[in-house]
Parts: sequence; structure tokens; C-alpha cells
Amino acid sequence: MKPPKATPEIEALPLSRPFVGPEELARLAGRSSLLRLGANESAFGPPPRALEAMRRELPRSAWYGDPESLDLRERLAAKHRCAIENVVVGAGIDDLLGMIVHGYLGAGGVAVATAGTYPTFAYHVVTRAGRIQTVPYLHDGAVQLDALIARARGAGARIIYFANPDNPSGSFIGRKALAGALESLPGDTVFILDEAYGDFTDPSDLIDDGDPRVVRMRTFSKAYGLAGARIGYALAAPEIIATCNKIRIQYNVNRTAQFGALAALDDVLFVAEVVAEVARGREDYVALGARLGVATLSSFANFVNFDLQTRERAEETVAALLRKGVFVRKPGAPPIDRCVRVTVGTAVERAEFGERLAEALVEVDAKLPRP
Amino acid sequence: MKPPKATPEIEALPLSRPFVGPEELARLAGRSSLLRLGANESAFGPPPRALEAMRRELPRSAWYGDPESLDLRERLAAKHRCAIENVVVGAGIDDLLGMIVHGYLGAGGVAVATAGTYPTFAYHVVTRAGRIQTVPYLHDGAVQLDALIARARGAGARIIYFANPDNPSGSFIGRKALAGALESLPGDTVFILDEAYGDFTDPSDLIDDGDPRVVRMRTFSKAYGLAGARIGYALAAPEIIATCNKIRIQYNVNRTAQFGALAALDDVLFVAEVVAEVARGREDYVALGARLGVATLSSFANFVNFDLQTRERAEETVAALLRKGVFVRKPGAPPIDRCVRVTVGTAVERAEFGERLAEALVEVDAKLPRP
Repeated sequence: MKPPKATPEIEALPLSRPFVGPEELARLAGRSSLLRLGANESAFGPPPRALEAMRRELPRSAWYGDPESLDLRERLAAKHRCAIENVVVGAGIDDLLGMIVHGYLGAGGVAVATAGTYPTFAYHVVTRAGRIQTVPYLHDGAVQLDALIARARGAGARIIYFANPDNPSGSFIGRKALAGALESLPGDTVFILDEAYGDFTDPSDLIDDGDPRVVRMRTFSKAYGLAGARIGYALAAPEIIATCNKIRIQYNVNRTAQFGALAALDDVLFVAEVVAEVARGREDYVALGARLGVATLSSFANFVNFDLQTRERAEETVAALLRKGVFVRKPGAPPIDRCVRVTVGTAVERAEFGERLAEALVEVDAKLPRP
Repeated sequence: MKPPKATPEIEALPLSRPFVGPEELARLAGRSSLLRLGANESAFGPPPRALEAMRRELPRSAWYGDPESLDLRERLAAKHRCAIENVVVGAGIDDLLGMIVHGYLGAGGVAVATAGTYPTFAYHVVTRAGRIQTVPYLHDGAVQLDALIARARGAGARIIYFANPDNPSGSFIGRKALAGALESLPGDTVFILDEAYGDFTDPSDLIDDGDPRVVRMRTFSKAYGLAGARIGYALAAPEIIATCNKIRIQYNVNRTAQFGALAALDDVLFVAEVVAEVARGREDYVALGARLGVATLSSFANFVNFDLQTRERAEETVAALLRKGVFVRKPGAPPIDRCVRVTVGTAVERAEFGERLAEALVEVDAKLPRP
């Protein structure tokens, strides 16, 4: 007897994954661990207050978390000066993206995004029988926001995805330019504004709230150092939050993570230090690139793209670094697939990375000379 | 400006939730906490080894978990004597149910389940534009498995959902009877066998693996005391697991939970003690019912249904208990909506529950005399 077949749409999909994890890469490389600079995790760990709260709550892991995440939503509403009806908590932005795509796209619906941006968005679109249309990055990694919106208008898109700061490019569009671009957004299009890396920028340069088409997504995975906890949230009009609440899994969030996130919000000084150290780390990487004759893209996030000039050289560099025990990733689509994206590590990790990159470049230059 | 509208299917759905959490009930009742006997959480907490492993790993919460959950899948494959290609890990059975419904139902597709069984299954079906057809429980809470399969055959159903032991009834169908019923299962129907409560039954009376239409779902939320951690798994044919891997969120599981689950599997003695104490607790509840003149349904899980004889009396009992600080739930559909479902607590909690139930029954009998 054969197993039943999935729906035709799902059967037709390849078995692709947005990411291969560092654990699997380490196994493939025959190593017990890697220097983790590939997933933009925080090198500085969880905030001490979050760790303390999570330690305190662990013994109550036999209890489900509050399905409404009410304490956390009240705290987030206070932070963002909105109502709790404007907030939904998810198991990271991945979970929240799924809610919006599920709620707003529809089979055959079109979503628009930059080619090569966060792959999980496109993954959600294609697994729900939607179609994705893309606009390329500019050469320097800038997102063509006006072109995204024009494409959405032309295609009758239901959803636009835009990360700000962008991943994997690191580019950023400030508040005024963003507001200007949004003036031409069609009224029936949901604008997903993924601010996963928003904590690394000047908060006063982030969007003003209030546009009912915009869904802001935030996470505790980056500056707050809780990627493994799987917790994030979206800010949007109450009607959009209500749609998410029709769809989301009720017990979607780990209970300990709820307490960790709540406490993390109070560890303001620690997070400010992380953000400052990330800024120093970006400067270190820029200086490292200059020493090694490798240009870097401007970044507003916790990573820097090293410009290897061709896709082949970038791929060889990722492979050479992996052989040396360093996990990094690279953008997937032109024109920035010529880059290697490196997360800001601790000072010690950055120094180690600098040595490994120098060694890797010798190998790459021997195989594929600089153009 | 108005927010964009969701898809017509989602717009048409009411804003209903499968569950109201005890945190919200406590707030509504003006209490800081409740005696939690309503969500079938383990009263005995996480296994000590799981707690130790989670404490050890918490400082690494800035790292994402392994998206493949490989160590855990290898351990589970060894436990269930199958290949890792037969195992997928999810953020609880809720997450796994979503994968199967997403992968196999299709818009307008029919799923069949017992009326009033685990509501999250029907929730996944309707949020994906599927239709649910139901068969009622028998008076004693038994699932009409042959009728479910006949209904699926008649309706051309893609999916059957069957919990064994069942929730909320507590009834159970042994290995041989189950195998006999499955002989008439249509070849293209996915049979979801939710064994969330399977750890409370004799393992030798659970299904034999190997039927390619069956997806067994297991959780760490019940006997393993990790409901708040959100982690479970499904066992199925490699083709079905591959479908899940096309759909699931890559980083779907909390990293600390992965380590907790792995360690919990080694805490065999602790879990055996939990299972034994749950069996004693069920007997206590049966005796309590007998003392108070309330019949109980036979249960193979970590809860017992007290038979209040009418839906109205059951609802009044739930409300009276809530006023006294006790959180319980009741089955939602006839004929067992005349019952109140009570999780087995610790000996101390059971004693307290006995007192509160006696008080509640006095109030209920005064308002709605026994028929």
C-alpha cells in the first residue's frame, strides 16, 4: 500500500528548505561545532534579566503558556504606545509571516518582495499556492522600494514584504523616505514591514505607526538574544490582528519564552550595550575588509556583507571558511550574491574570523583570481 | 483608510478560539491563580533530567535550535524502532496537525472526526477552507471508529482524526480492534492517530507501525510534563514526513525544548512514576464520584469525566468550581457534554478538588435538581 498523496499544489513543490542549519553543516564538515557567524544570532547571549526569569519559570514548564500572551502584550503595547488589540505574539517572525500569508494571500494571489530577501517569506507564499514576484536589489544592496510598490500595483498584489533594515543586504530606508513611498501603496495591499533588525537602528528613524496597511514585525531573536526561544510580535490595525487570531495556533509560544521576553524588555541597559558593541563590530569588519582588500556593503544590522566581486568567489569563500570551522552564509540572488554575509561576533570571535578570512582569501585568490 | 481585507474564506470565519486559557479565566474571576485541573497538564512537573538539561542550555538561547532536530529525531527513531525519515518534530501536536491539514486537505476537502473531540483539529480544517463532518460519541464516551471510517468513505474524506486514548472522553480502542477497523480505511485517506495520551496506556496495546496511511502523533505535553515547552512529534511514512518538511516552519521548535525533550526520554523511572500516580488519581476520582453520587466515565488518560447527567448541570458545575478557584473544562458536544472533565492532580490537589466539588454540587443541586 502507498501513502496518500498530498494536495497537487504541495506535491508539485520541491523538498527545499530555506536554511541548512549550522548543526547539519558541522556534521557534514566532520566538526563538533562551528564559529556561528551565519544566522545573525546575537553573540552576546540573552539579557541577564531574561535568563533569570526563564530560570525561575522553567520548573513550571508542565503548564501551557497563556494563549493570549496578555502580560507580554500589555508590556509591548505600553512600549509602542498602542492598544493590546494592536499586538499579536508569535513563535518568531516566521510564525507571524505565516499568519499574514495565510490570512491575506489566497490561492493564486501575488506577493511582491526583493529577490533574495528573507527566504522564509517566499516559502510561506509558495506552500500556500501563491505566486511571488520580485524586484532586484541595487548594486549596493539598497531595496528598490518604489519599484516594489509599482510592481505590486501592476500585479494586483495582496502583500508586499519589505525588511528594514534589510536582510541579507543590511541596507535601510529611513522614516521619511518610507512614508513617502507608502503614499503610492494600493489601499488593499498588506505591507509587511519586517523590523527584525530594527533594534540596531536609531528608533527615531523607524516608521510612525498608524497606517492600517502596514504590519510591523519585531523579534526577540536579534538584539534581545533569544533566537532559540522563538518569540516575536506584530503591530498592526486591530482588524489585521483579529485575522491573525483567527489563524494562529492558540498555544503557539513557549511559556518560558513568554517570561524571558517580558523580562528582556526591562533589560534596557544590556540591550543598549549589545547594540553599541554591534556597531563597533561592524566598524571592525569594515576595517578588516579594507586590510584584506575586500569592500564591504554599508549595514544597519548585526552583520556585514563582504564583497567578493563574483558569485563564484563568494561561494568559494563560504566553502573555505566552513572547512576552517566558520559558519557564514551568503545572499542568494544577484546582484549581491557576490557577497558573503558575516554576523557581528564578540571581539574574540571577530579576531578569529579575521584570521580565518585572511587564510580563506589566499585559497580563493589562488583558485579564482580577483577580477 | 481601512485595513486590507483578509481572503473571503478567512473573513467569513468567526473570531472563535478553541480554548480560553486559565490565565484569562482567573482574571475574569478576579483571582491571581486557579487550581489548574482543566488543560490536562501534568501536575507532576517536568522530569528532573529534562529540567537539568533545560537549565544547562538556557544560556545558549541566543542560538536557534537545530532546524532538523536531528539528535532528538535519532533518539525517537531508536525508541520507536524506525528510521529518522519516519519522524518529524513539531511545536506540539497543534503544529503537527496544521502540517497534515495543510498538506493533505485542500480547499473544500472533507475531514472526519468525532463531534466534540480535540477542537484544534477542526480549527485547522476550517481556517484552511476545509469542511468537517462528524460522528457523535456513544453515551459512555466511546468513539465510533467504524462509523468514522464509513463516513470518510462516503464523503470521500482526505483525513480522519482519531485520538486514542480520546480527549475529552478518555475512552480507548486497543491494538487489535484498531487494526481491524483500519482494514476498511480507504487507501487515499490520511488517518491521524493522536496519541497525546498514549503514554498513560499499556504500550503493548498501542498500534503496530507500518500502515502508510497512519500518522501517529505524540507529545511531551502530558506524561512528560513539558506542555509549556511546545514540543511533540509525528511518526509516519517517509513520504508523509517529507510533505511535513515542505510545509513546516524551519525553526519551529524552541531550542531549550529540544534539549528538554531529549533528556526527558531518558527519565524513564520518573515518567513511569507519573503514569502510576495518574492511575491512582483516576481511582481517587472514581471513588470521589461514588461518594458524591456522581458517576464517572471510564478513562485511559490523565483525566476523568464526572457525569452530571445534563449539559446544564455540567455547565453550572464548571461555573461553580471556577467561582471557588478551580479551573476545569467540559466536553463540548452531546452526548458527553453532560460531563465535567477533571485532570488528575497531585494527591493534595485531588483532596482540595474533592472538597470544592462537594461544595459546588450542593449549589448545583439547589439550582438544578438531579433528574
